[in-house]
Amino acid sequence: MINKLISKIQKTNAPIVVGLDPMMKFVPEHIQKAAFAEYGETLEGAAEAIWQYNKGIVDAIYDLVPAVKPQIAMYEQFGIPGLIAFKKTVDYCKEKDLVVIGDVKRGDIGSTSEAYAVGHLGKVQVGSKSYYGFDEDFATVNPYLGSDGINPFTKVCKEESKGIFVLVKTSNPSSGEFQDRIIEGKPLYEHMGEQVAKWGAACMPETGRYSYVGAVVGATYPEQGKLLRKVMPNTFILVPGYGAQGGKGADLVHFFNEDGLGAIINSSRGIIAAYQQEQYASFGGAGYADASRAAVIDMQKDIAQALASR
Amino acid sequence: MINKLISKIQKTNAPIVVGLDPMMKFVPEHIQKAAFAEYGETLEGAAEAIWQYNKGIVDAIYDLVPAVKPQIAMYEQFGIPGLIAFKKTVDYCKEKDLVVIGDVKRGDIGSTSEAYAVGHLGKVQVGSKSYYGFDEDFATVNPYLGSDGINPFTKVCKEESKGIFVLVKTSNPSSGEFQDRIIEGKPLYEHMGEQVAKWGAACMPETGRYSYVGAVVGATYPEQGKLLRKVMPNTFILVPGYGAQGGKGADLVHFFNEDGLGAIINSSRGIIAAYQQEQYASFGGAGYADASRAAVIDMQKDIAQALASR
Repeated sequence: MINKLISKIQKTNAPIVVGLDPMMKFVPEHIQKAAFAEYGETLEGAAEAIWQYNKGIVDAIYDLVPAVKPQIAMYEQFGIPGLIAFKKTVDYCKEKDLVVIGDVKRGDIGSTSEAYAVGHLGKVQVGSKSYYGFDEDFATVNPYLGSDGINPFTKVCKEESKGIFVLVKTSNPSSGEFQDRIIEGKPLYEHMGEQVAKWGAACMPETGRYSYVGAVVGATYPEQGKLLRKVMPNTFILVPGYGAQGGKGADLVHFFNEDGLGAIINSSRGIIAAYQQEQYASFGGAGYADASRAAVIDMQKDIAQALASR
Repeated sequence: MINKLISKIQKTNAPIVVGLDPMMKFVPEHIQKAAFAEYGETLEGAAEAIWQYNKGIVDAIYDLVPAVKPQIAMYEQFGIPGLIAFKKTVDYCKEKDLVVIGDVKRGDIGSTSEAYAVGHLGKVQVGSKSYYGFDEDFATVNPYLGSDGINPFTKVCKEESKGIFVLVKTSNPSSGEFQDRIIEGKPLYEHMGEQVAKWGAACMPETGRYSYVGAVVGATYPEQGKLLRKVMPNTFILVPGYGAQGGKGADLVHFFNEDGLGAIINSSRGIIAAYQQEQYASFGGAGYADASRAAVIDMQKDIAQALASR
């Protein structure tokens, strides 16, 4: 799956993943109204609204980008109906041949981590049959519990030709509280990066340079990104924090290797709620999907330009 | 909710939480057969099996213990039907007046962490109405992302009188890979414990000694538990790893304060799959719930004895 992701990045010339993190305040009024008219102001109504909203965006951008990253929390908050909308979104994006990165940040130990891995990336056994639960292509994983949390995921990834992105240095302001603490002369995130490189070395696809164990490093920390790029030369880096969180194309060039690969930049609200920004306001709520398309095109140019002029 | 948990611990004289982590291999054959007969060997069939299995256990033990801790991964692996079984289990346990600790180990940043908090502990807004998604009483939270991940949870806890348990030192063999690394002369878990104590100090209920921000410290690390007990004097500690993972009552006394409170010990398969152990094998699959009850009683005695003789 890492090689599919790479080949799609090359085809679209867009190392971009669109974060499908549908907050209700992003959903245009006409979509909310239609959903509430059908299901009432209920969890089912909210789930219908975010699903229709997602569908519009996916239809508008699927030919421009290699991948999407639905953030499961935004669905989970609406309980079971929300999770049904998550699954519909995953399935629909896969129909459109998008690579789906489930931003689930799961992480536990042993059989529990295996259950998460099976639920999101693999097949669960039921008697003599087996079934996919959510069936994303990649999942994000929290490494605080160590190898016991990671190994069950890599096992399933190997069986299913899927992949994970391990949190190394997150994009938020307080990420340094623990991740930046110095251990034997190096910050924790650097140790984590070294460990991800080790996990990754044991998880190489049959061909190609990049492991199917990737890393998450926030766009908001370009200097750390530069260092981690060197620490993990064969690791694909998922970079959140572009746009709304402050990152710009020029900040991101060091996340890429000299082969022009090795990173994929996420933008969520900057794309899916583009119509609410001044720059794209003329599209209006009715044109929200076209606004998202325009925002993707601008982001693609910004990154391509930054990479060309490095 | 922390005070409800404490008063129930005192009433039952059992600082015990039963981990409802239903793996299919634990579910007695007669329950699997009945579920598959009704729904086939499908995700729905598996979900029905684990729900009926849980219900039997809860009916057998609800008067003996203050709390249960369903591990959501074990449900999530069965996709949507599994999560419906999770919700049914949470609702049923609450009907039985058990305190429900959702072992979800979620953790993200800002609005995303808020969405998890709202989904598991609070109410989500839908138009002019609001709804509970899963509505557990407590949730476990992963702190690798720092305060940005914790604050949205404590905000919802305050509004809803609920609580969280933050991962500090987990029970698994590889937990030391990061958690034991030395930072300024102290292991990371100790820094984490200090931080939990700080978060907790800002999250005190109106009465009582214990914060509604608790900690998770594995039974398998008694020495670390002793230290963390001192670092976090007003923190309730959720202690996994009793029984199957190797912890015994005598190892656990240092997790408690001199008031006899401050800790709640989790056992999962040691109770829910008791009938598969030699000691309780005479109950057989048909008597699995009674075997669970017997195992709870033995565990209660083991811990009470250890506390009395310290």
